[in-house]
Amino acid sequence: MPALAIHALAIHGGAGTIPVAGLDGETADAFHAGLGAALRAGWLVLCGGGTALDAVTEAVKVLEDDPLFNAGHGAVFTTAETMEMDAAIMRGSDHAAGAVAGICGPRHPVEAARLIMERSGHVFMAGAGAEAYLRDAGLEFMPPEYFATAWRREALHQELARRASGAADTRSDADRHGTVGAVARDASGSLAAATSTGGYTAKRPGRIGDAPVIGAGTYADDASCAVSTTGNGEVFIRFTAAAEIAARIRLAGQSLERAAADVIAALANHGGDGGLVAVPAEGPPVLVFNTSGMYRGFVADGMVCTAIHQEPYRRTRL
Amino acid sequence: MPALAIHALAIHGGAGTIPVAGLDGETADAFHAGLGAALRAGWLVLCGGGTALDAVTEAVKVLEDDPLFNAGHGAVFTTAETMEMDAAIMRGSDHAAGAVAGICGPRHPVEAARLIMERSGHVFMAGAGAEAYLRDAGLEFMPPEYFATAWRREALHQELARRASGAADTRSDADRHGTVGAVARDASGSLAAATSTGGYTAKRPGRIGDAPVIGAGTYADDASCAVSTTGNGEVFIRFTAAAEIAARIRLAGQSLERAAADVIAALANHGGDGGLVAVPAEGPPVLVFNTSGMYRGFVADGMVCTAIHQEPYRRTRL
Repeated sequence: MPALAIHALAIHGGAGTIPVAGLDGETADAFHAGLGAALRAGWLVLCGGGTALDAVTEAVKVLEDDPLFNAGHGAVFTTAETMEMDAAIMRGSDHAAGAVAGICGPRHPVEAARLIMERSGHVFMAGAGAEAYLRDAGLEFMPPEYFATAWRREALHQELARRASGAADTRSDADRHGTVGAVARDASGSLAAATSTGGYTAKRPGRIGDAPVIGAGTYADDASCAVSTTGNGEVFIRFTAAAEIAARIRLAGQSLERAAADVIAALANHGGDGGLVAVPAEGPPVLVFNTSGMYRGFVADGMVCTAIHQEPYRRTRL
Repeated sequence: MPALAIHALAIHGGAGTIPVAGLDGETADAFHAGLGAALRAGWLVLCGGGTALDAVTEAVKVLEDDPLFNAGHGAVFTTAETMEMDAAIMRGSDHAAGAVAGICGPRHPVEAARLIMERSGHVFMAGAGAEAYLRDAGLEFMPPEYFATAWRREALHQELARRASGAADTRSDADRHGTVGAVARDASGSLAAATSTGGYTAKRPGRIGDAPVIGAGTYADDASCAVSTTGNGEVFIRFTAAAEIAARIRLAGQSLERAAADVIAALANHGGDGGLVAVPAEGPPVLVFNTSGMYRGFVADGMVCTAIHQEPYRRTRL
């Protein structure tokens, strides 16, 4: 477990992961490097006296830029071979929140969510209306081909062929979902959470997952915790997973560790496979999952700690 | 307060309401009649041994068909003079949920939410992707002119003119939001909630309110309560209003009355004006609001009870 610190930062790059047997060393190194870069970006903000909100924004932007992760560049495709991205961000001090769903255009969907939070007067926007607003507001846009990657397209074609053939679904967690997220606590004790995703390969156009649903995939409340989840989004929505963890801390006096573990276990009973990262008002981050792995990491004692499956955390100097 | 009963049903047609001074007797009668028709439709389901889920569906459909209420026929306009409707439905026995946002087409958005819940494999869909799925699934569609009403269009033009002139916002609650919703408990003790809305006049295209956000505007859990809210949706999302009431019952042992009253009071401190209807696992419905009024009603002792402001409930035989 990470040591106590004033600053805290944890991230995830999705649960599931490529199965242990199918993950070669070079690919694993690339995932660790991607997670490490995101942690360093977020930690730099916190060490410079920046806010938790800025830290999670910067960490998630790095993961959105990295095609290994299913968010921004590298997002998965819908059945219509389009990309529809969801993201949310929330600040724990005042419950300010922004979320966006079903967009393809903003280079960093997390910045789209933040712009909606800070400037729109709304909390949640979707689709063409959201894209038009964000473009008018001057957010950085990229063409669809920027987001597209050959291996995500191949994954779509394989899945469509499987469905057409009637074959059983033997995809790993990694094929069925993927998300990135970050949680942080800054020197003022304020918390923040952010989540960003392309959804899952061959989702229906129009489908919204839990990432942009405040209280399901993303939540922050200084009195309890900040949470970003990843997994089978439908189940996380139905059980308001992130807000439930905060409620157990605030109303039932549970520790973050216990609340997070219990909620992830309860979700599993309803088919909700996945995981989450969270930071409490005081104490170290918590990273839990009920899948075979979760791309994840945190910073502790000057070390960047990253892991994929159940192996010990790989530790590298900041 | 309504008496204890096995069945329970409560509805709202939005908070705010037309100010007392501006509400003539004929208009008030029309609102009471609309609320009464929705209560009778839902109650008929429950008395016939139907489920809470069917009861809230039927009650909300009646309100969606009534142009007095801001949902379905009679929905408000966006700044683009389009209509974008949101709805959600949830069953408390298994947390099954369906939600839809930013659609214009299905005659009954609540049925769109229910179809998504029962058949799509998803929980939440939005925009053109949702419309295409719902049309393919055979849901009843209507052309845009079916939903449009002259007075909602006039309200949009007035609001756009006000904004263009820079004049202060002197609109009543009724102009700023409006939603319909229902909560029910059936003979098996199962709960359900449904909410449907056009949002608010001159909202940005793409804006999603709390109605379709599970845990914010709509929530049902047999162990605690079913809730449908109405009001300033952004604040209800940021505080996961509906799920928070359920959490206080389940985790802190609060009564529904206390939890609902405390949450509505807390929301008011953050600019969240509005109200809600709720039913607990046992006992009578609760109807609370922090606005000048809320179109609302419930059934008790064979009487349909409806009200608009703070006046005594108008009681008519079933």
